[in-house]
Amino acid sequence: MPTLLFRSPSDPATAWSAALRRHAPGLDVRVWPETGAVEDIEYALIWASPDGFLHDLPALRVVFSLGAGVDHLMGSEVPEGVELVRMVDPALTEGMIEYVIYQVLRRHRHMAEYERQQAAAEWRIHPQLRPGERRIGVLGLGELGGACARALSGLGFDVAGWARSPRDIPGVTAVSGDDGRDWLLGRSDIVVCLLPLTEATRGILNGELFQRMQPGATLINAARGQHLVEDDLLIALGEGRLGHAVLDAFRDEPLPPDHAFWQHPHITVTPHIASLTNPETGAEAVARGIRADQAGEPIPHRVDRGRGY
Amino acid sequence: MPTLLFRSPSDPATAWSAALRRHAPGLDVRVWPETGAVEDIEYALIWASPDGFLHDLPALRVVFSLGAGVDHLMGSEVPEGVELVRMVDPALTEGMIEYVIYQVLRRHRHMAEYERQQAAAEWRIHPQLRPGERRIGVLGLGELGGACARALSGLGFDVAGWARSPRDIPGVTAVSGDDGRDWLLGRSDIVVCLLPLTEATRGILNGELFQRMQPGATLINAARGQHLVEDDLLIALGEGRLGHAVLDAFRDEPLPPDHAFWQHPHITVTPHIASLTNPETGAEAVARGIRADQAGEPIPHRVDRGRGY
Repeated sequence: MPTLLFRSPSDPATAWSAALRRHAPGLDVRVWPETGAVEDIEYALIWASPDGFLHDLPALRVVFSLGAGVDHLMGSEVPEGVELVRMVDPALTEGMIEYVIYQVLRRHRHMAEYERQQAAAEWRIHPQLRPGERRIGVLGLGELGGACARALSGLGFDVAGWARSPRDIPGVTAVSGDDGRDWLLGRSDIVVCLLPLTEATRGILNGELFQRMQPGATLINAARGQHLVEDDLLIALGEGRLGHAVLDAFRDEPLPPDHAFWQHPHITVTPHIASLTNPETGAEAVARGIRADQAGEPIPHRVDRGRGY
Repeated sequence: MPTLLFRSPSDPATAWSAALRRHAPGLDVRVWPETGAVEDIEYALIWASPDGFLHDLPALRVVFSLGAGVDHLMGSEVPEGVELVRMVDPALTEGMIEYVIYQVLRRHRHMAEYERQQAAAEWRIHPQLRPGERRIGVLGLGELGGACARALSGLGFDVAGWARSPRDIPGVTAVSGDDGRDWLLGRSDIVVCLLPLTEATRGILNGELFQRMQPGATLINAARGQHLVEDDLLIALGEGRLGHAVLDAFRDEPLPPDHAFWQHPHITVTPHIASLTNPETGAEAVARGIRADQAGEPIPHRVDRGRGY
């Protein structure tokens, strides 16, 4: 009977164990720190590996990430020869689409101004652009970025997307390369970052990139805190180069209470909730991966550790 | 050459005249109060008829409404024998979809709570339901209600809709009749009103209806102020029967500065901006109607004055 070890500081172990047992009835699910005999453990489902514990599992074959991003597992956390699998969960994708659409509509339709007006009992109407007159640029066209670009296009927005390799997404102008990126930045009213975090994208949201954006444009970062150079953002907002930033992920989480982002009038902070992996559908994806592995077939969504995602 | 008279207290006459001349090059467009010879005027494009001026136009054949709703033109404003045409404008539909999706996502994803948390520098995560676990009920499945129900269903929400006559909308459970309405009210976490205002729907959002809704549910009224019994809403919110109301239209507009809705902690007020008719696409629809009429064909979207919409 295959054995899986679950470990996460924040995901609910009870819900995940129950869902895993439902979707993989033969699976022996153990929850850290109750590992039992470590030589049984072929699979691990984890958020991170703070103390190198994966190296203490001699039979480990596959590590499943609880999150869509695997940047925090790209060092020596996962032993060589062990497969690493990204979380591709339909609920995670749905949640990200909801978050990005909400934040885009909030800017597009002046909803924050209308809330301020309500507090002042002020009846004032702002111009309403058609969605086709609003240009959105999505950085990253993977599982999440591609789905968000498609959904925004479905609402009628003028959407361009940038990815490392050329993509073909109906209704989305997909570009690649430095020229493609600069073209996207220069045309977009709203730029959404959904890139994977790799050595090539760490700190990509920096002063040089903000210079290429439209004056007064909005930045939405729903990817990783390490994509952003925080001081550069504060300067760009202070100079009016950027109009607003919506940030869901941060270098230090929880964001410290005295951090400048919390009280900044042109920054929206959300506590890394753009999308959460769902135990039910996430467990289903893991069960599918384990079945494939047990049948000797390749597991879907394996990470290319050279590429970084 | 056919002649059209434009009159509105709020829609921009310059933009509308220019767009009308572009889409109907042969049309003589006159803007109130510069009517010229009234016996030339066959068409009127208006918001309302405050002073019965339509009766002073002897050659009037068709009145085009600037708004989707025509309730304010259903009395004796439009002379007998004159056709009344609703505004069906793709931009108006897009705007309403945006507004309804935004307000639904704001409740679905606890976004108002996250904004309050930001002000307090509080990092706290609320549960994330899948859209398929969130039940939305749409009252009215006409041009706007049907489009919103489809769009919400496209995002994965569990959508039911109620209309006077049975409808068939893929992905939406459409019901009719009193039983259908009560079933919809009893199951929905969020109820969206997009009904036409008629004698049958005036005051439909009242205490009896709120009693049939789920305790703590949200009401979104993006239709007409006259649909709502204001005091009943305040009682239902005060008792916790309803959790929240989002209101875009009011009996008195602009909503008076001392009105209780402005400062109510469980009411969101927007100044009738859920959707605005777009001069460009609206003029195109009017031009199409005039061409049909001049060719002796029926004009699309004529109002059945017995039915009221």
